[in-house]
Amino acid sequence: MSSNLRINGDRLWSTLMEQATIGRTEKGGLRRLALSQEDGAVRDLFCRWCEDAGLTIAIDGIGNIFATRPGTDPHAKPILMGSHLDTQIHGGRFDGILGVLGPLEVIRTLNERGITTKHPLTIVNWTNEEGARFEPPMIGSKVFCNLHAIEDALNIRDKDGIRFGDALHTIGYSGRSALSPEQCDSYFELHIEQGPELEESGLQVGIVTGAFDVRWAVVEIRGESAHSGTTRMADRRNAIVGAAAVIECVNEIGLVYASSGGRSTTARLTIEPNLLGILSHRVEALCDFRHPEKGVPQKMFESFQARLPELIARTQCDMSIIKDWQYGAVDYNADLAALSRTAADRLGYSHRDMLTVAGHDSMYIAGVMPATMIFTPCEKGISHNEAENVTLADIEPGTNVLLHAVLARDAQT
Amino acid sequence: MSSNLRINGDRLWSTLMEQATIGRTEKGGLRRLALSQEDGAVRDLFCRWCEDAGLTIAIDGIGNIFATRPGTDPHAKPILMGSHLDTQIHGGRFDGILGVLGPLEVIRTLNERGITTKHPLTIVNWTNEEGARFEPPMIGSKVFCNLHAIEDALNIRDKDGIRFGDALHTIGYSGRSALSPEQCDSYFELHIEQGPELEESGLQVGIVTGAFDVRWAVVEIRGESAHSGTTRMADRRNAIVGAAAVIECVNEIGLVYASSGGRSTTARLTIEPNLLGILSHRVEALCDFRHPEKGVPQKMFESFQARLPELIARTQCDMSIIKDWQYGAVDYNADLAALSRTAADRLGYSHRDMLTVAGHDSMYIAGVMPATMIFTPCEKGISHNEAENVTLADIEPGTNVLLHAVLARDAQT
Repeated sequence: MSSNLRINGDRLWSTLMEQATIGRTEKGGLRRLALSQEDGAVRDLFCRWCEDAGLTIAIDGIGNIFATRPGTDPHAKPILMGSHLDTQIHGGRFDGILGVLGPLEVIRTLNERGITTKHPLTIVNWTNEEGARFEPPMIGSKVFCNLHAIEDALNIRDKDGIRFGDALHTIGYSGRSALSPEQCDSYFELHIEQGPELEESGLQVGIVTGAFDVRWAVVEIRGESAHSGTTRMADRRNAIVGAAAVIECVNEIGLVYASSGGRSTTARLTIEPNLLGILSHRVEALCDFRHPEKGVPQKMFESFQARLPELIARTQCDMSIIKDWQYGAVDYNADLAALSRTAADRLGYSHRDMLTVAGHDSMYIAGVMPATMIFTPCEKGISHNEAENVTLADIEPGTNVLLHAVLARDAQT
Repeated sequence: MSSNLRINGDRLWSTLMEQATIGRTEKGGLRRLALSQEDGAVRDLFCRWCEDAGLTIAIDGIGNIFATRPGTDPHAKPILMGSHLDTQIHGGRFDGILGVLGPLEVIRTLNERGITTKHPLTIVNWTNEEGARFEPPMIGSKVFCNLHAIEDALNIRDKDGIRFGDALHTIGYSGRSALSPEQCDSYFELHIEQGPELEESGLQVGIVTGAFDVRWAVVEIRGESAHSGTTRMADRRNAIVGAAAVIECVNEIGLVYASSGGRSTTARLTIEPNLLGILSHRVEALCDFRHPEKGVPQKMFESFQARLPELIARTQCDMSIIKDWQYGAVDYNADLAALSRTAADRLGYSHRDMLTVAGHDSMYIAGVMPATMIFTPCEKGISHNEAENVTLADIEPGTNVLLHAVLARDAQT
């Protein structure tokens, strides 16, 4: 394939800007929660664009959209390119979206040039990657990979009590397609880095070879409800004070491991009753420990556990880990990464290998087929924030690498 | 009046136990939020009991209930006895309720003995004392005292967006009575102590001479939303980490002042967006500083303010006080307290003078007419908790003191 082949950057940009009108926030970000009216609207727009590009739409039972351009070899399995169109509550315009509409630009470019492929090419929009409305996140890819029963997923409820399956039905994306992982060749996910590494080192493309190891834990802090006026300091067991000790401890562990790339977070507190005039009797704190080196998050988590007795003694609250799980520590497919690396070299783009710290659908997909990710720089590494930003110059190289890596995969297998 | 006159303890207890069936929780407490269906039901029961006792019911525009037994002197102003029938979300069976149904027992005793009074006697149930559903608390007495415009109060919404005025209308307690503070003689509020002092010192009655000084502050902690995986420790401004520093600082100040009776609390956090995978960009922390000595809470608050620059520097979050107010530091009427003290002595009850640390309707009422409070012991000082408990032996002395103090007031003026 000619190394002169390039996507149409202006067309990609205008496509991205058009989708960014759906769920637009005052500050210029997006609020497009999974299975909301806005998610429905952007899915409709995406499907229309796909049909205009000659793709055939299939939708599965959890709402994942598969838009396929046929290949020339009836026995060749589809090469998948995908990510997600849903956003955080105060989300940005590119996180996930580039990985769906970048592939659309790839297809449009191939169409325009009359280039056919042996393998079908399938763009995927995974349902509810963010998990900002329905938890857990990445439920669409998880169900696709048979890691989560679809019946259970459809019964998940959002904080207003709305059932996932009902919301999916309301927006009209409850389908019956039964594409299975075994029927697919490989998976490419293009994504903004969501971190500052590429921008800071002035590089154009990230070749993602694996994912950070992540250890999650839900800590339950149990105190005692009491009147905040009449209860003497010595008699108190305010779970909010216990939670503060947990938050500071988790943060300190992140600081200890920061120099080698570690980080840890208390991201969410659920407080009961959390009312004026009352000492709270219960807090649930969702914490995570991350490190590029496999196994280190487990050590971070263990050092947190080791400090619990001291926190309990100091705050007079009971504390225990009521749920914990490991995530990430995935190795992506080395052959696919090599195709991306070669493509970047041929196209003259600066690049480096890197790990993803954020979770992505690709981390599940990597367990069921060869998978890889291509990262683009993003402004100051900001994401999950309305200020998330990229320029066309940030994303054009990565999208061209996707185009060439996919064609190379097609030629290779 | 004969010092042999006593209320009927068994009748008082059975009345208390009957009301405790409305909104009963599994753990034996009460959930009877202001203007809920349960609040409507207990009001209906209370009104029925009052009518059975020959009282005339009047309801004002904010839903306060005034149940009056006529006096013999048409020019004498009513003596009020009251408190509230609403509870916390996980509330107890006596907090507030004793101050409404104790007076009912007083009236029943007078009826039974054929004792008339010169002044009308009026039992009051103040609307929404707890503030657990609609904020601020004590809104019924505040409106009565012209400290809060009724139009504004009726427009307050609960967390589900339900308007105060609509909820009041739904339970049928939106009235038109226009009893004004100037038309009243005095106010007596009987209440469980909600603290451990009486029980620990083995005393039967608390003569409440004033209220703790309380300094409230709402602290806004501003960080920056970002991905909890991709954001390096050094680049973070997690408002949850800022909040932890505030919580610990507020708690430390309480400990510094604990030996002289001071206490301080972070009671409620409002966190945005408080989601898995995100550093939060904003937390609002509601804090209070309390001390028996007037002016000390202001010093506690100032020492908190003085520490803010250090907390800001340490957590990289911005922090500011966005709202603060003073409350309490009320002196109750000395003449009424003397009547209670004399009654306790005559009846042979052990007693001491004390301050209230909790907020009560009486604190507003004390600004518009002579007011006093009578405290009873309660188990371990626990309140705002389903485990809140008293025995008949705990509350009978205080209720008898109320009876005799009210009769003494009637005889005196």
